[in-house]
Amino acid sequence: MRYFLDIAYKGTDYHGWQIQPNARTVQEELQKALSTILRKPIEVTGSGRTDTGVHARQQVVHFDFPEKLSYRIHGFKLNALLPKDISVKDLFQVKDEAHARFDAIERAYRYQISLKKDPFLTDTAYQIRDSLNIEAMNEACRHLLGRQDFECFSKVHTDVNNFFCEIKEARWEESGNLVTFRICANRFLRNMVRAIVGTLLEIGREKIPPKSIIQIIDSKNRQQAGRSVPAHGLALAEVVYPDTIRDC
Amino acid sequence: MRYFLDIAYKGTDYHGWQIQPNARTVQEELQKALSTILRKPIEVTGSGRTDTGVHARQQVVHFDFPEKLSYRIHGFKLNALLPKDISVKDLFQVKDEAHARFDAIERAYRYQISLKKDPFLTDTAYQIRDSLNIEAMNEACRHLLGRQDFECFSKVHTDVNNFFCEIKEARWEESGNLVTFRICANRFLRNMVRAIVGTLLEIGREKIPPKSIIQIIDSKNRQQAGRSVPAHGLALAEVVYPDTIRDC
Repeated sequence: MRYFLDIAYKGTDYHGWQIQPNARTVQEELQKALSTILRKPIEVTGSGRTDTGVHARQQVVHFDFPEKLSYRIHGFKLNALLPKDISVKDLFQVKDEAHARFDAIERAYRYQISLKKDPFLTDTAYQIRDSLNIEAMNEACRHLLGRQDFECFSKVHTDVNNFFCEIKEARWEESGNLVTFRICANRFLRNMVRAIVGTLLEIGREKIPPKSIIQIIDSKNRQQAGRSVPAHGLALAEVVYPDTIRDC
Repeated sequence: MRYFLDIAYKGTDYHGWQIQPNARTVQEELQKALSTILRKPIEVTGSGRTDTGVHARQQVVHFDFPEKLSYRIHGFKLNALLPKDISVKDLFQVKDEAHARFDAIERAYRYQISLKKDPFLTDTAYQIRDSLNIEAMNEACRHLLGRQDFECFSKVHTDVNNFFCEIKEARWEESGNLVTFRICANRFLRNMVRAIVGTLLEIGREKIPPKSIIQIIDSKNRQQAGRSVPAHGLALAEVVYPDTIRDC
């Protein structure tokens, strides 16, 4: 039987999601806890990686187990065993062929920027000193929408050969001293959100006009886009699957 | 010239506000930073203490300095020098006789309870597993209002001889899995908010009825009230002074 597990984590003390030797990762902690509780080595597959320091408000993983499991019983045990910065939010059975990565139809990320020093946001928001022209940033966001080749926001050395992503939503909101970016797409390239935010910040600081984002996208050249912003402001916010994934 | 400094801090890594030997405190860090920037030993007086692990969304302190200071210049320098979990929110001149502790006319505290494991609230909310009857808790809150002898919520060994406080506001609000208590009074006794929250939790868990809080207050006996809740859910939220304090 295949299960989906909804988790959340604060990435501050982890070398990202993906398991690797000699580094503490979220995947490793989760597999350890699952294997302990289910008394059987369990491997999980995530909807995607998150880099060192990046958080997840919702990350989805799948794994297989031959017996009936429930969130009420096993989710509770997992939460008790997992470190305090990883939590299990849901656990449910899915179709046998359901896949946390390949079946995701939409992913959303959130990037938080703090315009003032805030002792409660040091791990989850990037603090800057400049004031930002949010209207200009949102004007630029409109040019991000739709299915486009986003090689300009991709890591330079990558084995990806298709840079097309369909961005469905991209907008900034301001609330007091906190400025939050939400971006939603069918898929994201590595480092893409942080490169987009860095580029939009140049627009917010009025160093380049909102429309320049069109030329940057057209250039397909990472050098044309802005500098990547730090990891700790970023969180995977949501992963969406078709409703039919549960029909089992 | 006397100045008021508005600060905020995350108390997790501090042994409370008040300076003491062999322990890291907020007051010490603040005095160190002020003394460095103003090139003169500076002592500050806070509006009140906060215990180990307790946070402050707003704490107010006063200090004296013979020259003109401004938030724009000196607040900026202080924020750059202070650790990331202490921030300066404002700095302004007050009357020479203004006193951060004695002139405060109102203080507000906030206590956060999380009903679900949340990786982003581990340092700032007390996690419990029970569901709570918020309505019953708010019914009990009404009996807390007004000027009363609150010895029942006071630390047992204390040199205070007046247990009268005037509670002006006390109420719980629920938002998703987060339950927040706000209490506002002219003064608070040591450990008072945590003892009140512990007592209201017994009411929320329906172990005792809302009206029992009347007998608990009448008893003037700490044994009658509930167990103190942990420090990390508590934050000093606000300190209020008369407007005339700035007339200088």
